[in-house]
Amino acid sequence: MIGSPALRRDFLFMRRIMLIIEYDGTEFAGWQYQANARTVQEALETALRELLQENVHITGSGRTDAGVHARGQVAHCDIGNMMDVRSITRGANALLPPDVVVRHVEQVDDQFHARYGAVWRWYRYTISQEPIAIGRTYAWHWGQHLNDELLHLCARQILGEHDFQAFSKVDTEVKHFRCTVGLAEWKRENATLTFDIKANRFLYGMVRALVGTMVEIARGHRTLEDFQRILASKDRSQAGMAAPAAGLRLERVIYSDERGNNA
Amino acid sequence: MIGSPALRRDFLFMRRIMLIIEYDGTEFAGWQYQANARTVQEALETALRELLQENVHITGSGRTDAGVHARGQVAHCDIGNMMDVRSITRGANALLPPDVVVRHVEQVDDQFHARYGAVWRWYRYTISQEPIAIGRTYAWHWGQHLNDELLHLCARQILGEHDFQAFSKVDTEVKHFRCTVGLAEWKRENATLTFDIKANRFLYGMVRALVGTMVEIARGHRTLEDFQRILASKDRSQAGMAAPAAGLRLERVIYSDERGNNA
Repeated sequence: MIGSPALRRDFLFMRRIMLIIEYDGTEFAGWQYQANARTVQEALETALRELLQENVHITGSGRTDAGVHARGQVAHCDIGNMMDVRSITRGANALLPPDVVVRHVEQVDDQFHARYGAVWRWYRYTISQEPIAIGRTYAWHWGQHLNDELLHLCARQILGEHDFQAFSKVDTEVKHFRCTVGLAEWKRENATLTFDIKANRFLYGMVRALVGTMVEIARGHRTLEDFQRILASKDRSQAGMAAPAAGLRLERVIYSDERGNNA
Repeated sequence: MIGSPALRRDFLFMRRIMLIIEYDGTEFAGWQYQANARTVQEALETALRELLQENVHITGSGRTDAGVHARGQVAHCDIGNMMDVRSITRGANALLPPDVVVRHVEQVDDQFHARYGAVWRWYRYTISQEPIAIGRTYAWHWGQHLNDELLHLCARQILGEHDFQAFSKVDTEVKHFRCTVGLAEWKRENATLTFDIKANRFLYGMVRALVGTMVEIARGHRTLEDFQRILASKDRSQAGMAAPAAGLRLERVIYSDERGNNA
């Protein structure tokens, strides 16, 4: 096969594709490849390798933790195979396990980078105040009373640029803990509360620590002043418990040219 | 214990309670008790027996098939224990497996009957025209084109009283196949189609056979005239395949006094 025109063409014309990916995180040990664990990255690379008959390395916009879902994770990879993007979408979905779906594939400029090019990441956290059976793996069931006004006031405090070290797990990969929050909004629809948060970057465990701490305040176990104090402390031991992974979902990743925005 | 005041009072004052129940049917062999199979009825009876310390027999508004979900199944049972209804709700939910939830319990008149008193049963069938990972156990993924207008025209044809034998699996328990359909409506929201159907009674497999047949027409494999002919034939072999159980959900059961209407 070596030296055959088909194979040589693959190597001469590599191209970058961007993928929008949905997954149900329940049965995954997270996005990022790990030995001896089922990960979304590995599921995608396995399916694409089989489909395209070449080794594929996928770069995601960022990691998601074990059990966290995604509706619009964005990734890119470089491939030699000239298969059209619709066929890649369909072929990948035919080969992927049922808890991962490729929603969209398009060819992008070689300068596009799923991680470094992302301007905003948008997460949604869902709390159900009633016990639920249908959809129970996509929400945190919290039956006790929560004060919505306190949730709103907490959310308002994190808008803009802050050091979120108090809401980050230990992570040796990051050099600083500053994040710019562009949206932080709680909404209630009957017994369902959702928290939408959009930021330029997220630290490890950040949304779950924020939600867990806000819930401690909204249930009356800590005060709004405590929240300000925790944020200023930069000390993770000050923040509340992490809210469960099941309630968290990466909704969308936004790029400067609006790519990925149709997620 | 026999003859103790507490126990005697249980037997002297039996009362009827009504329950509104939600369940995720994925891991159940249906509602109705079967030997060697996991059923919702048995899960409920086991939890209530443990909670109330007495044998409990539950009567549902009707059976649901293996894999079919319910948001507002209604059931009743007679109990001697004087525990208040809020404690029954909470206690049952603490003992039930995570895929069954008691949403509401109230004491009802002894004349209330979950099955015979039901005036309308309301089911919803959900089709996703895009592949989905999140919520995939609550919808049928049908990627090919469907003509919405043909779905609407089929739905209109089943309104009112008809003999639905052509859309019923063999069932020796029923004496006739006439059902009155009070609502039959398809709606689309982007790639999601829902079919709402309300009838005084449903035959075994009826909604799934109706949806499967309507999809065959809406994809162009059969004509609208075929649909009329199938309905008139009273012959199950004429109808289309049954749509998958996962897409079906019992939304609500309606009683003449509106009981169960808050489901």
